[in-house]
Amino acid sequence: MTTSANGRRKPPTVHDVAREAGVSRGTVSRVLNGGHYVSATARKSVDAAIKKTGYVVNRHARSLITGRSDSVAFLLTEPQEKFFEDPNFNVLLRGCTEHLARHDIPLLLMLASNEDERRRLTRYITSGHVDGVLLVSSHSGDPVTAELLDAGIPLVACGKPLGFGGKVSYVAVDEREGAHEMVRHLVSTGRRRIGMITGPLDTPGGTERLAGYRDVLAESELPYDPALVVEGDYRRSGGEAAASQLLDQAPDMDAVFVASDLMAQGVVSTLQRAGRVIPDDIAVGGFDDSPAATAVSPALTTMRQPFDRISAEMVRVLLAQIAGEDTAAVILPTELVVRDSA
Amino acid sequence: MTTSANGRRKPPTVHDVAREAGVSRGTVSRVLNGGHYVSATARKSVDAAIKKTGYVVNRHARSLITGRSDSVAFLLTEPQEKFFEDPNFNVLLRGCTEHLARHDIPLLLMLASNEDERRRLTRYITSGHVDGVLLVSSHSGDPVTAELLDAGIPLVACGKPLGFGGKVSYVAVDEREGAHEMVRHLVSTGRRRIGMITGPLDTPGGTERLAGYRDVLAESELPYDPALVVEGDYRRSGGEAAASQLLDQAPDMDAVFVASDLMAQGVVSTLQRAGRVIPDDIAVGGFDDSPAATAVSPALTTMRQPFDRISAEMVRVLLAQIAGEDTAAVILPTELVVRDSA
Repeated sequence: MTTSANGRRKPPTVHDVAREAGVSRGTVSRVLNGGHYVSATARKSVDAAIKKTGYVVNRHARSLITGRSDSVAFLLTEPQEKFFEDPNFNVLLRGCTEHLARHDIPLLLMLASNEDERRRLTRYITSGHVDGVLLVSSHSGDPVTAELLDAGIPLVACGKPLGFGGKVSYVAVDEREGAHEMVRHLVSTGRRRIGMITGPLDTPGGTERLAGYRDVLAESELPYDPALVVEGDYRRSGGEAAASQLLDQAPDMDAVFVASDLMAQGVVSTLQRAGRVIPDDIAVGGFDDSPAATAVSPALTTMRQPFDRISAEMVRVLLAQIAGEDTAAVILPTELVVRDSA
Repeated sequence: MTTSANGRRKPPTVHDVAREAGVSRGTVSRVLNGGHYVSATARKSVDAAIKKTGYVVNRHARSLITGRSDSVAFLLTEPQEKFFEDPNFNVLLRGCTEHLARHDIPLLLMLASNEDERRRLTRYITSGHVDGVLLVSSHSGDPVTAELLDAGIPLVACGKPLGFGGKVSYVAVDEREGAHEMVRHLVSTGRRRIGMITGPLDTPGGTERLAGYRDVLAESELPYDPALVVEGDYRRSGGEAAASQLLDQAPDMDAVFVASDLMAQGVVSTLQRAGRVIPDDIAVGGFDDSPAATAVSPALTTMRQPFDRISAEMVRVLLAQIAGEDTAAVILPTELVVRDSA
């Protein structure tokens, strides 16, 4: 905010942002329109300047000119219970809302729990009520991606959508490398009978983390034993069920890599009910670093997904696409967070 | 579904619904358009017939004629964390989604966590992108009700909005009568030092449940002691804090009526940490019968809010209003559910 001659505070303008960032107005403008043709350094300065000055785009005035709806949908094609249960969605949704807020764009949340809801919401989206879609849809069989693509709706998926080549923009973490790091950590602490509870195997998070687990077994010259691997569903109850199955199939297991923190929460409680001490008897490694990781005791050693960067990049790529840019994929690194469970 | 001559299943029509319900097509039509001028019995038969036949309105064809967006917003003006934490919202949202589904209308979820988000979402709503709003906004100071009213947007609030007389439709439970029943239950089991943790006192659920508590103290000739009453915020953490305060102010308390199950969850854990046995040392009565009531041990004795009826009525009143009906208020009864905590 700046203070004018009469003492009233005036909203900051693009000029204020440019001055603060030490760049031209054109650069600020390009950042606001999606950030293409701008260096990463300039983008960072402009983002910092926007934050510092409190600048907000006058989106209403703009939408009168462009005829756009100036809104973005956050479309989740998962059962509604999952949305409420998994804290990752809360974090991702908050991040997307905040990054869109800098452009004064409202976010509409759409939950497509079944085929009818998906059909109704797709119809709404393709009728011109939203300019673009942030899509959180993990399953590869989901027709929504193809439908939105066919309708020419700008679209950015969270996680790589399988089967679309370069036609769909997405933001994802390096799933396989994340799994490498976790399994190497388990091996480095002396574990030799390492189990895995995967995500759904029709998702990249499911298959890629499993592939990463197998890579590290091979490089460590540990045998791959199918009895040590169970497919999960990213839910707490699924983690409990999978842990019971692993205890039956491989009672000598001394570590387990679980493909989500929420499932790992369920795994910890099942192992503890079975009398196993974590990490002494069995180490548990998670994935996400979601609020679930620290809501359990012992707190989870896990791979941090950079949710704030993920949501920032999803918004940036989507706005660029709405402005006419071609599709893009952004891959971000994960980070090992060592706590008490492994 | 009916099966046609060539063996293909055809979607059910209004005729099928009318035949199944044993009513005329006109009656089915009136039910579909909001249920006015239809007896409760006929409405029930039609609802049952719609469910049985699987009938869905061809909303797309209709919207081409009416020029409506044919969508409804579920607008929540609460901090986002609260939305994820409180299972009531999940239940209410699911109910509204399902009741709208019978009319083939998609539901857009809008979270207005702060003033900017509220402003952006109100702008979107008033630009013609939605036909009506299901409003979940507990606080009386919230300007969103007045803004939507001024813009002429059909609107149904969940709970009575304070300060609007008969101008805003709403669906609520009989808050005061619900409190009567719970406090009478506590008195009937021999409790004499009954505390209360209220909801926010700028909400009807806050003030009316407190009034009901005071009514029953008076009728039971128990003194009203301000040290026994603490204002809460409908959150688990708020319940914990309020319980600590009550333990300080009134250590001889032998029961506590808590205005929401989620707060009661926090109350139970605080009392148990302080070494109190529930219900032997102290009885805990909740409100809602939300999933939180049975997620705690001992399971909560509570007042059931009929969430499915609440959402059904919200949708019915909103669709009637979109079709041109005047505003309406619907008050539903609560029901005492006795479990283990009181």
